Amino acid sequence: MAVTSHRTADLGFARLDLDRATRTGTPEVVYAAGKTPAQTVACLAALLDGGNPLAWATRIDAPTAAAVLERWPDAVIDTDARCAFIGTVPAPVGQVVVLTAGTSDGPVAAEVAATLTASGVACRRVDDVGVAGVHRVLAVAPDLAEADAVVVVAGMDGALPSVVAGLTDRLIVAVPTSVGYGAAFEGLAALLTMLTACAPGVLVVNIDNGFGAGVAAARIVRSAQR
Amino acid sequence: MAVTSHRTADLGFARLDLDRATRTGTPEVVYAAGKTPAQTVACLAALLDGGNPLAWATRIDAPTAAAVLERWPDAVIDTDARCAFIGTVPAPVGQVVVLTAGTSDGPVAAEVAATLTASGVACRRVDDVGVAGVHRVLAVAPDLAEADAVVVVAGMDGALPSVVAGLTDRLIVAVPTSVGYGAAFEGLAALLTMLTACAPGVLVVNIDNGFGAGVAAARIVRSAQR
Amino acid sequence: MAVTSHRTADLGFARLDLDRATRTGTPEVVYAAGKTPAQTVACLAALLDGGNPLAWATRIDAPTAAAVLERWPDAVIDTDARCAFIGTVPAPVGQVVVLTAGTSDGPVAAEVAATLTASGVACRRVDDVGVAGVHRVLAVAPDLAEADAVVVVAGMDGALPSVVAGLTDRLIVAVPTSVGYGAAFEGLAALLTMLTACAPGVLVVNIDNGFGAGVAAARIVRSAQR
Amino acid sequence: MAVTSHRTADLGFARLDLDRATRTGTPEVVYAAGKTPAQTVACLAALLDGGNPLAWATRIDAPTAAAVLERWPDAVIDTDARCAFIGTVPAPVGQVVVLTAGTSDGPVAAEVAATLTASGVACRRVDDVGVAGVHRVLAVAPDLAEADAVVVVAGMDGALPSVVAGLTDRLIVAVPTSVGYGAAFEGLAALLTMLTACAPGVLVVNIDNGFGAGVAAARIVRSAQR
Amino acid sequence: MAVTSHRTADLGFARLDLDRATRTGTPEVVYAAGKTPAQTVACLAALLDGGNPLAWATRIDAPTAAAVLERWPDAVIDTDARCAFIGTVPAPVGQVVVLTAGTSDGPVAAEVAATLTASGVACRRVDDVGVAGVHRVLAVAPDLAEADAVVVVAGMDGALPSVVAGLTDRLIVAVPTSVGYGAAFEGLAALLTMLTACAPGVLVVNIDNGFGAGVAAARIVRSAQR
Amino acid sequence: MAVTSHRTADLGFARLDLDRATRTGTPEVVYAAGKTPAQTVACLAALLDGGNPLAWATRIDAPTAAAVLERWPDAVIDTDARCAFIGTVPAPVGQVVVLTAGTSDGPVAAEVAATLTASGVACRRVDDVGVAGVHRVLAVAPDLAEADAVVVVAGMDGALPSVVAGLTDRLIVAVPTSVGYGAAFEGLAALLTMLTACAPGVLVVNIDNGFGAGVAAARIVRSAQR
Amino acid sequence: MAVTSHRTADLGFARLDLDRATRTGTPEVVYAAGKTPAQTVACLAALLDGGNPLAWATRIDAPTAAAVLERWPDAVIDTDARCAFIGTVPAPVGQVVVLTAGTSDGPVAAEVAATLTASGVACRRVDDVGVAGVHRVLAVAPDLAEADAVVVVAGMDGALPSVVAGLTDRLIVAVPTSVGYGAAFEGLAALLTMLTACAPGVLVVNIDNGFGAGVAAARIVRSAQR
Amino acid sequence: MAVTSHRTADLGFARLDLDRATRTGTPEVVYAAGKTPAQTVACLAALLDGGNPLAWATRIDAPTAAAVLERWPDAVIDTDARCAFIGTVPAPVGQVVVLTAGTSDGPVAAEVAATLTASGVACRRVDDVGVAGVHRVLAVAPDLAEADAVVVVAGMDGALPSVVAGLTDRLIVAVPTSVGYGAAFEGLAALLTMLTACAPGVLVVNIDNGFGAGVAAARIVRSAQR
Repeated sequence: MAVTSHRTADLGFARLDLDRATRTGTPEVVYAAGKTPAQTVACLAALLDGGNPLAWATRIDAPTAAAVLERWPDAVIDTDARCAFIGTVPAPVGQVVVLTAGTSDGPVAAEVAATLTASGVACRRVDDVGVAGVHRVLAVAPDLAEADAVVVVAGMDGALPSVVAGLTDRLIVAVPTSVGYGAAFEGLAALLTMLTACAPGVLVVNIDNGFGAGVAAARIVRSAQR
Repeated sequence: MAVTSHRTADLGFARLDLDRATRTGTPEVVYAAGKTPAQTVACLAALLDGGNPLAWATRIDAPTAAAVLERWPDAVIDTDARCAFIGTVPAPVGQVVVLTAGTSDGPVAAEVAATLTASGVACRRVDDVGVAGVHRVLAVAPDLAEADAVVVVAGMDGALPSVVAGLTDRLIVAVPTSVGYGAAFEGLAALLTMLTACAPGVLVVNIDNGFGAGVAAARIVRSAQR
Repeated sequence: MAVTSHRTADLGFARLDLDRATRTGTPEVVYAAGKTPAQTVACLAALLDGGNPLAWATRIDAPTAAAVLERWPDAVIDTDARCAFIGTVPAPVGQVVVLTAGTSDGPVAAEVAATLTASGVACRRVDDVGVAGVHRVLAVAPDLAEADAVVVVAGMDGALPSVVAGLTDRLIVAVPTSVGYGAAFEGLAALLTMLTACAPGVLVVNIDNGFGAGVAAARIVRSAQR
Repeated sequence: MAVTSHRTADLGFARLDLDRATRTGTPEVVYAAGKTPAQTVACLAALLDGGNPLAWATRIDAPTAAAVLERWPDAVIDTDARCAFIGTVPAPVGQVVVLTAGTSDGPVAAEVAATLTASGVACRRVDDVGVAGVHRVLAVAPDLAEADAVVVVAGMDGALPSVVAGLTDRLIVAVPTSVGYGAAFEGLAALLTMLTACAPGVLVVNIDNGFGAGVAAARIVRSAQR
Repeated sequence: MAVTSHRTADLGFARLDLDRATRTGTPEVVYAAGKTPAQTVACLAALLDGGNPLAWATRIDAPTAAAVLERWPDAVIDTDARCAFIGTVPAPVGQVVVLTAGTSDGPVAAEVAATLTASGVACRRVDDVGVAGVHRVLAVAPDLAEADAVVVVAGMDGALPSVVAGLTDRLIVAVPTSVGYGAAFEGLAALLTMLTACAPGVLVVNIDNGFGAGVAAARIVRSAQR
Repeated sequence: MAVTSHRTADLGFARLDLDRATRTGTPEVVYAAGKTPAQTVACLAALLDGGNPLAWATRIDAPTAAAVLERWPDAVIDTDARCAFIGTVPAPVGQVVVLTAGTSDGPVAAEVAATLTASGVACRRVDDVGVAGVHRVLAVAPDLAEADAVVVVAGMDGALPSVVAGLTDRLIVAVPTSVGYGAAFEGLAALLTMLTACAPGVLVVNIDNGFGAGVAAARIVRSAQR
Repeated sequence: MAVTSHRTADLGFARLDLDRATRTGTPEVVYAAGKTPAQTVACLAALLDGGNPLAWATRIDAPTAAAVLERWPDAVIDTDARCAFIGTVPAPVGQVVVLTAGTSDGPVAAEVAATLTASGVACRRVDDVGVAGVHRVLAVAPDLAEADAVVVVAGMDGALPSVVAGLTDRLIVAVPTSVGYGAAFEGLAALLTMLTACAPGVLVVNIDNGFGAGVAAARIVRSAQR
Repeated sequence: MAVTSHRTADLGFARLDLDRATRTGTPEVVYAAGKTPAQTVACLAALLDGGNPLAWATRIDAPTAAAVLERWPDAVIDTDARCAFIGTVPAPVGQVVVLTAGTSDGPVAAEVAATLTASGVACRRVDDVGVAGVHRVLAVAPDLAEADAVVVVAGMDGALPSVVAGLTDRLIVAVPTSVGYGAAFEGLAALLTMLTACAPGVLVVNIDNGFGAGVAAARIVRSAQR
C-alpha cells in the first residue's frame, strides 16, 4: 500500500480528501450535522466526481435526505441510521455481530450496521440483550464465535461489554449511547463504564458514534482478510 | 417506638447523640477520620457511659487502634475493616449476602461485614465474582435466595449489581469503590454505573461507604424481623 | 424461589424478559422514552401475552398514552406519574411513606406511588415538608413509625433525607430530583447531598428515578412479608 | 469614610496594601500557604511598620509559627486555626454564633473564631449539631436570637445551613468544608448543597474558607454597629 | 423573637409555612417554576389568607402572570424580575446598592431589586460597570459608602465583586449569572470566580439567584436597623 | 498612548465605554446575545454618537439584523459571522491567516474574519485542513510564512493547532468550537486539547469566541506595525 | 471454540478464572495494585497450578517484584512495564507497531509491549513522534503498512492518533496517558481528544491502560491469523 | 524562512527535533518532569550537539539540577523557575511586562521570565498587583504602554487579566496558576475566568504554564521586530 495519494477537491467551504479510501480503506464520509443540505449535496457530488464508487453522508436530517433524493433519485436513505448512500455498495465479506443492550439503542446500532454494509462487511444484529436478563447474553455466545469482531451498543449503565468480553476471544468495540437520564449524563456513565471494563479486550468509541465503531470493525475484518 | 429521646453528651469538641440507637436502631458511631486518637477514645467512652452496650469507631488508623487498646484491652480491632468495637456484640439474626467484584474491593466489604456483625445481623461473604467471568455470578444465585438483602461491592466498571439485580427479588445495596485508575475517577465511574443500573431494585451508597451499606442492610433485616 | 425461568419474547426491536416477575418480583416494565408509541404498545401486548397479569409502561408521553388507550380502552393512565397500566393491580400489603420536599417534586413522587400501587404495596404520600420549615418534618415522625420503608423525594439542596434518617429506624430510599437551577446542576447537587448524608440508613437512586425507588421499596415490603 | 488611601509597601516579592483596613475595615492579612516562613515574617513586619495595630497570618505551618515566634516572642499562635497574630487585638463588640455540623469541622470553625476575635467581634461556638440529630439544632434556636449573624460550618452533605436558615431571621454565612470522602468530592457536595439551600438567607464562601466567613460576619456586625 | 410559630396551610400538593415571616423575617415566597398557574395562584391565596400582608411569587411565566391578574386585578407584575406581588409593600428603610457588570445581567438584578422592595428595603441600581472599564467601577465608590450592603451581579468572568470588595468595608453579596457562552458553563465560571475572590468580604449565592441575594441583603439591613 | 480617557454614555440599561478604542485599540463592541433589538440599536447609536467611526455588534439574530437595517439602511450585515457594522471600515494592513479544521467550523472563522476586517487587518482564510488528512496542513505552510499571526479554528478533537504550531514561528491563536457530539462536550474536548498542546506558541480563547481571537490577532498585527 | 469452561480456583480473597485463556484467548492476569505481595504470589501460583503455561501480573511494585522472585527465581520482571511473568512466553506471530508521542509516555508503552510479548505477538516500538514535529510522524508511515494493528500512546493533547489514523488503513488503538499538568487533568484531556478524533478508525482504552491496549491488539492479530 | 528542516536525534527513548528553532523560533526544550536526570542530561547534550547554541530544560527537580551541573559546571540553574540553561543566552530585544496577582504566583512568573530571557527578549516583572487593591493595577498602566506584550499571572479568582486588558492596547497573555484551595480546583477557576474575560485581547495558556506564555510572548516580540 502506498501512502502517497493526497488529491483534494476544494469547494471553498470544504476541502475534500479524495484519496482517503486509498490511504485508509474508508473514503471521506460527509458528516452532515452542521452543514446545509446544499453543502452536503455538493460534498457528495465532489466525492463521486473524485472517483469514489460510493459516496456517503451520516447524521442527515429530513431536508438533507430530500435534497439528496432530488439530486440522486436512486440514492439509498437509511432513516434509522440517518445515512444517505449514492453509488455501488461493495459485496460483503467477513462477519461482525452487533449487539444492543436495549431497544432505545437501536438508532446507533443502525448506524453501525449501515457503516459496515457500506464498507463491504457482513453484519448480524441481535437486539435487546441487556445484562438485567443475563441469560439473554449467554444465549448469544454461539453467535460470537462466528464473528470477526463484536460491536456492543449500550446506554444507561453500559455494563454489557464487560460481560460479553468475558465470553469470547473476539475484539469488542464498545459504543456508549446517550440513552438514559439523570446520572447517565448524556452517555457519560456508559462511557466511563466501558473505559473501565473489568474484562480486557474492550475498545471504546465516542458516545453515539456508530459510524466510528463500524469503520473500526471493518478495519478488523479487512485485517483478517489480508 | 417513641421518637422522643434526645439526650446528648457534650464533650466540647463533640456533642454525642446518646439515644440514636433508640430512635434509629443504630447508635451514633464514631467516624475516626479527622479526629485525634484522644478524641476518638473520648467519644467512645462517652457513648459507653451514655448506656450503649457497644461503642464503635470506623476509619481508624494504627495510632487510634493503639489508643483504643490501651484504654480497653479487650476491645476488638478489625484491621481489614479499620473498625474498633468495645462492649457486647448482639446475637446475629437474619442473613445478608455480601458480594465483591474483585479482591481489591475486600476492605470495603470487610467494613460492611463488621457493621452487620455489630448490628446483630448474620453475614455471608462471597468474594471475587466479577462479571468478566459471569458464570461465577450465576453460581451465587442459590445463595441469594437465602438472603434478606444483598450487598454488592464493586469498583472499576461497577457492573456487578446490574447483573445480580436481574437474578433475584432481594433488594440490592450497591457500594461503589475507589478501586481502579484513570477513567474510574476514584470511584465515580462505578457510582454512575450503579445509579443508572438497567435493572431496578438497586440502591446506592457513597463510594467506599461500607458502613452505610451495612446499616442499611441491617435496617432491612430488622424490618423483616418485625 | 427458583431462578430458572428465562423465556423471552423476541419482537425484533426488543427481546422481552417474560419471567422477570418470577425471578425478581417485578415484571419487565416498558421504559417508553426513546420508543415510538407503536413499539411501546407492542411491548405491552407481548408482556400480557407472556402471562403477566399487569403490563406497565413508564415515561409515556401524550401520543403513547393515546395509543395505549386506543388498544386497551380500560387501561389506566396516570398522567402525574406518566405511567400506563393494563391488567389487574394486586391488592396492597404493607405500608410505604413517600415524602416530598417541595411541590415541584410531585411528579417524581407520583411515579413512586404508581410503582408501589402496581407492585401491590400500600402507599401514603406527605408532600412539601422541606427542611426550611423543619417542624413540618418533625410532625411526620409518627407516620414514619408505621412504615415498612420511607421514600424521600427532594430536589435543590436534597437535605431532607439526612434529617428524616435521624428520626426513624426505617430504611430511607432517597430520590434526588432535577428541580432547581444553577448549582443544582439538573439534580447533581441533590444527588451528592444524599450520597454523603451524615445520617446512615439512606440509600440513593438515580435523579428523578421514581420507578426505581418504588421497586426497591416494594422489595423491602415483600422482604418483611416473607 | 474616604476611599482614598492607597499606600503600598513594596518588598519585591510582595506589594502590601497598607491602607486596606481604612478602606475595607480589615487589614491585608498574610495568606501563608505558598510563602516561605521568611516571606511571611517580612510581610507581617511591613504591615506593622505600615501602621497596622495588629498584623496577622492565616494557613501557617509549624516552621512559619516558629519563625514568627522567633521574631515576635509575644505573638499569639492559634494552632487550631493555624493563625498567627502580632499586636493588639481590639475589644469585642456584637455577637456572632458559629455552629459546626461535626467534630471534624472544628479547624475551620477555629479559623472563623480567630478571624472574628482579631476583627474585634465577640464569638460564641456551638459544635457538633449536625442534622442527623435535628433536636440538637432546635436546641440552638435561642442562641441564634442573640446573634448579629450566624456562621454555619459543615462538610459531607452540608445540610445544616438549610435547617438553621428556617429557624432565624439572622443572616447565615455558610462554610462548606472538605470533610468527607467519595462523593463529598473534597467539599464540592457541601458547597452545592449550600448554594441550592431551599431556605433563603444563606450566603456561601469557598470550601474551608473560615477566614472569609469571619471577615464577612464582622462586616455585618460593624454594619449593625454603625 | 420567639421561634415558636409553625402554622401551615395544607393544599394537598403544597404545605405552606404561614409563620415564616415571623420566624425568619421573610414570608414563604412561591417559586413558580415547576408549578402550574393554578397551583401558584392557590399558594398565593393561602399565604394571604394565612395573614401575610404581601404574597409574592418569583420565576413566573406569562400564563402565570395572567392567572394572577385575573384573580387579583391590582396585583403588581414586574416583568423584568418575573415576579408577582399581591398586597401591601412595606415602606422602605436602609439602602442597598445593586451593581451589574453588563446589560445582560439586568433581569437578575431586577429580581434583586424587586425582592428588596418587597422586603421594605430601599435599593439603588447602577448598571453596566464591568471591570473591562475599571474607571466605571471607581466612579461608583462614593455610592458604596452610603450603603448598608452591596449586591454585585455579574456573568462571564464574574470578576466585578473582587474589585468592589477592595473598595469598601460593606458586605458584598455576589450573584453569578448564566450570561456568557462556552467556558462560562452556564454561570459556573462566574460562580467559581466569586467563591475564590482574592478580596475577603464577598459572600455568594446560587447562579441567577436574585431572590436569595435580595433576602440576604434585607437581613443585613434589618440587622443594622435593630 | 495616554490611558486617561474614560467618557461613558449612560443609557440606563447600559453604560458605554466611549474611549475604549483610544485606550485599547478596539472600541466597545455590542454583544447582542441577551439584548433586545432595541437595546442593541440604542447601544450602536450611542457608540456612533460618541465619536466611533465604526460601530459594531456580534451574535446578532435575524430580528436584530432587521432592526439595525431599519435604522441604518447602509449597515453591513455579515450573516455568516452574525455581525452588524455601521460606519467606516479602516483600510487593511498586515496579514492574518485563518485556518479551519472542518466545514462546520466556518461560522466561527467568519466571526474571526469579520473582526479582523473591522479592525483594519487583512485576512486570508483556508478552510477544512483538519489533521485527518495531514498533507492538507503541510500544504498551508507557505501561507503561514507570510502571516503576522495565525488563527486556527477547530472543534471535535481540536488537534490542528498542535500540528500547525510545529510548522511555523508565528503566534497561533487557537479557537475551540462547539462542533461535535458526545465526548466533545460542547467544545470542552477541543478546549482542553488546545490548552495542553504539545507545541508551544499556542494561545487559546473561549469556545466559539471568534471575536476574541480576531481582536487578539489584530493586536499582534498592530504591535508589528508600531 | 467452545464457551463452556468455567473452572475457578477459590483462594478465599480471590476466585480465579482458570479457563479464561480458553474462552477469551488471554488468561486472567493479576492486577497487583491493591493486593499485598503475598496475595499476588498466591494468585500467580494458583493460575500456574490451574494449567496456565504463563502466569502474569501487572502494576507490581518493588516489594511484589521481590516476593515474586523469591518464589520463582527465574521469573521475568519488566521494571519499565511494572510486570512480572512466570512460565513460558509463546513464540511471536504477527506485528504490532507501538508509537509514543513523548518520552514520558514510555512506561505505558512498555506495558503495551510486555502484554503483546506475553500474548505471543511481535511488537515494534517507535518513540517520541509527537505531532509538534509532524514530519517525525510521516516518517513512520512505511512501518504502519507492515503492521496488523497500531497502538498509539500519548498524553497532554493526545493529538497523535488523529494524525496517524489519516495515514493508514490499520486499526488504531489509542492509549491516553496521564502525562501533563493543569488542563491535562490526569489524562482526561488526552482521553477526550482521542474519543473525538476527527479521523475514524481510532478505538480508545482507559488512561494509562497499556495492558488493555495490548490485549486488544493481540486479539486483532489473532483474528488476522485465523 | 524555509519550513524544510527536519533533522532528528534518535536517543531510543527520545527523538529530538533538532531544527525546531529554525522552523518555529524556539528550540525543542526538554520537559524534565517524567524524565530521569540521566534522560534530561542526554537530551540536553543531543540538542547542543545538534547545533543549538542554548539547550534548556524546564520543570527540573534538585537531582536533575545536580546532574546538569555535574555535566556542565557552568550551566545556569534558575531555582525559582525550575529551569536549567547550558550555552549562550541571546542579547535581549523588545520588552515584555510580566504581572503577578499575588506573591504565591511568583514561581510561575519566574518561568515566564526565564523563558523570555532564554528567547532573547527583555522582561520587566511587577509583582503582587491583584485586583483587591485595584489602585496597584492602575499604577502599572504607564509600564504597559512601553511593552510589546503583557503577561499576567494569577491564581484564585484569576480576575487580573480582565482589568488589565481594559487599560491597554497590548496583547495580554494570561497564565492561570494553581494557587488557591477549594473552589479554585487546582487552577480551574482562574482558567475559566480568563477564558471568559469580559475584555477582549486576552489569550490563555494552560494552568501554571509559564514556559508556554514566555514562548508566545517572545513570538509577539519577534513579530514586532521583523
